[in-house]
Amino acid sequence: MYTYQEVSPLYTDLYQLTMAQAYFKTGMHEEHASFDYFFRKLPFKGGYVVFAGLQDFLELTENLRFTDRDLDYLLESGFDKDFVNHLKSFTFKGDIISVREGDVVFPFEPVVRVEGSLLETQLVETLLLNVLNFQSLIATKASRIRFAGGNRTLSDFGLRRAQSFGAIQASRAAIIGGFNSTSNVLAARNYRIPHAGTMAHSFIESFGDEISAFRAYAKTFPNNATFLVDTYNTLMSGIPNAIKVAKEMREKGHMLKAIRLDSGDLAYLSKKAREMLDYDGFNEVKIIVSNQLDEYVIRSLIEQKAPIDIFGVGTNLITGKPDAALDGVYKLAHVNNRNVLKISDNLQKTTLPGRKKILRYFDREGYYYADAVVMIDETDVSRMIDPFEKLKTLSLEGFRCEELMFTAMKKGKITEVAESPQKINERLRTRLNLLPAEHQRFDFPHIYKVGISEKVLKIRDDLLLKYK
Amino acid sequence: MYTYQEVSPLYTDLYQLTMAQAYFKTGMHEEHASFDYFFRKLPFKGGYVVFAGLQDFLELTENLRFTDRDLDYLLESGFDKDFVNHLKSFTFKGDIISVREGDVVFPFEPVVRVEGSLLETQLVETLLLNVLNFQSLIATKASRIRFAGGNRTLSDFGLRRAQSFGAIQASRAAIIGGFNSTSNVLAARNYRIPHAGTMAHSFIESFGDEISAFRAYAKTFPNNATFLVDTYNTLMSGIPNAIKVAKEMREKGHMLKAIRLDSGDLAYLSKKAREMLDYDGFNEVKIIVSNQLDEYVIRSLIEQKAPIDIFGVGTNLITGKPDAALDGVYKLAHVNNRNVLKISDNLQKTTLPGRKKILRYFDREGYYYADAVVMIDETDVSRMIDPFEKLKTLSLEGFRCEELMFTAMKKGKITEVAESPQKINERLRTRLNLLPAEHQRFDFPHIYKVGISEKVLKIRDDLLLKYK
Repeated sequence: MYTYQEVSPLYTDLYQLTMAQAYFKTGMHEEHASFDYFFRKLPFKGGYVVFAGLQDFLELTENLRFTDRDLDYLLESGFDKDFVNHLKSFTFKGDIISVREGDVVFPFEPVVRVEGSLLETQLVETLLLNVLNFQSLIATKASRIRFAGGNRTLSDFGLRRAQSFGAIQASRAAIIGGFNSTSNVLAARNYRIPHAGTMAHSFIESFGDEISAFRAYAKTFPNNATFLVDTYNTLMSGIPNAIKVAKEMREKGHMLKAIRLDSGDLAYLSKKAREMLDYDGFNEVKIIVSNQLDEYVIRSLIEQKAPIDIFGVGTNLITGKPDAALDGVYKLAHVNNRNVLKISDNLQKTTLPGRKKILRYFDREGYYYADAVVMIDETDVSRMIDPFEKLKTLSLEGFRCEELMFTAMKKGKITEVAESPQKINERLRTRLNLLPAEHQRFDFPHIYKVGISEKVLKIRDDLLLKYK
Repeated sequence: MYTYQEVSPLYTDLYQLTMAQAYFKTGMHEEHASFDYFFRKLPFKGGYVVFAGLQDFLELTENLRFTDRDLDYLLESGFDKDFVNHLKSFTFKGDIISVREGDVVFPFEPVVRVEGSLLETQLVETLLLNVLNFQSLIATKASRIRFAGGNRTLSDFGLRRAQSFGAIQASRAAIIGGFNSTSNVLAARNYRIPHAGTMAHSFIESFGDEISAFRAYAKTFPNNATFLVDTYNTLMSGIPNAIKVAKEMREKGHMLKAIRLDSGDLAYLSKKAREMLDYDGFNEVKIIVSNQLDEYVIRSLIEQKAPIDIFGVGTNLITGKPDAALDGVYKLAHVNNRNVLKISDNLQKTTLPGRKKILRYFDREGYYYADAVVMIDETDVSRMIDPFEKLKTLSLEGFRCEELMFTAMKKGKITEVAESPQKINERLRTRLNLLPAEHQRFDFPHIYKVGISEKVLKIRDDLLLKYK
């Protein structure tokens, strides 16, 4: 069973449990460990990622318990009796230090640090990746669509094309990224976000003719009706019938809210529709469009001055197309008082050892300038080094900085009251205002600088030397 | 709350509920309706889709109930009191006629037909699309990976990159498509499918040195140990240490099960690893590889004769990259004794009216030849017509045919005992054996013929004429 606040600890990769058993049998399961969550590649050929999913991850983690059914299954699967017995009282009692949701983050910085016993930090790995990778992907996609859409209304219509129950978290992440509403009623209820809807072709077809369908809908929702106008013929039938019923509504003191276009050339049809509506004085009636929209189509429609008020975005938003996944990983950095790393022939895949945090530096105008990954005991650094090209350094002398991470969970307990997705989007808007425009453009965005402190570099190089 | 068998009816698009209220207030909610589920575009540039997800959809539908919390939310959202009161006793009491899971299906054929009252058939639309589109996408992707992998073992490692809780249904669909196991323990428990796992880099790093980690794991799992060999240096450290510990295990009468490669050139490293293992008599020790695999990489590795026994596939499987969604739709075909359709300037987007079913024709050798979409009262047709080019016809005279659809739900009750995903995969294998190879190749597969009967054509054309 899994709700948006509760999931079985079996929602993990098998190896987390086998490794946990090996730690347990070796007596190492209580050793203190520190893991970093970070990603390597920016999705959508973009310049930033919107961090999202933390609150869901925290709630799921706080409530993580093995049920009897879970434990029986583990025994049945051949797990050790003492180990399974140990899991009976398992709860996550560690600390989670994280960037705030709605902040913008960049490759190779430790966005989240999870600290606690080896056993518990390992058991939450897969859940963390599952939730944070996906919500950050969708929030990022949504923020790109918001970038294209300017101040138009954006609604998530993706549920039917979502990756099954992934839809629920996706709708939350869409709001964080800048969407105004979702068609997903359960997500709307669970996360207290606005829902929105229109009308389907089947509704029109269920009536003998289009105008009867419009009239019936107007009668049921006199102050909140949207008519879908492309079932038979948009310009010859749909819009004329919509206007006819809108006039009848007006006579009774009501007002049609919107019409919806779901096919054809949306630039051309929206202009025609606007003319026809305005001609009869329906300047207030909004135009909603949908049909395979994404940030590029919306940008193009707006460039063509299509008079569209509301964009309904489905597949491309809800699945984060074309990337479909953020490549975030969870890597051990410190265990039992030792700094550790994973080595690769590819330096980009060699991890950064030690307990680290992020300092964000501002330029003289107050914009984001660069992020430095430093050890947790460092408060300010005068220069940072490119993690992969040692000769590339950047002076940070005299630049103001702030710490990006906060303690989101302390000894297994969430430290702060949950923020609404809308509130988190407010943070994102503030953050994006501080991120220079060059990092936000769609085509070949400028690369935001992320470096490491000399201390982090020395620790990594010493360890590399030791193992090579 | 939603489990793999239970979900709130609020897990739907808002417009389903507003339309339902309009039907209710108009007194039309009990009218009999028939909807078709079909898709228009084959994913992955492939030649077929593996139909999957039916059992989950049926169980979720059978258990669909509004809770008090759901109803309160609707009232709070401004829904009509009488309507909400009516929903109190809502259960789905309709019929579902469907192709069987694990069958291969093609564009424009009605894979599922949902029949019942307008209200109930509309209320399950979004859920149906959400479940069937996704599982069919993933089962199709998995079957392509199986096609590339031949008889090698395939394991789903995707949970961490999945679209949050979409992971659970994805793991089921992967088995249907031909995977042998999943790393997702919850999915394994829920669906009774085999789980599999290896070891993470963090395990190695938690010990001071690689060999101690291998020894500890071997001690805990003497008969089921896999060693990850690329934490420091695959050829110089990982494999030699694995062999050293494997020898110690052998002396105690145990056998190392496998080693895992997760980086570097997998063709080169797997050959070297095989040589090194065989040199010490470890011919039985298997080689597992992972790292951004998909059907094309696996095909290439096998062409290069890489001695790989087990492929662990993550992101590309679990998200159905690069498509990420199947474009399935749910369209009204019949209501209140009338055949209906949705018209579009694009004939491909004009729907097929009436209550229909699928006949699959076999060629003289017993292979699949063509599918005909016919009215439910037709038993055999002598020719079929291309749905978009009337002049293209195909004679079916003398060809044997079978009906593809069965009644999966009758008056709201599931009619058959659930099949396991493994059992469904057996059906798929039989079906793929009957599908000519040209439809299964990756590059420009031959297009499988789907046509309509003259009766379906006439009903559509008469309706088109009426509305134009």
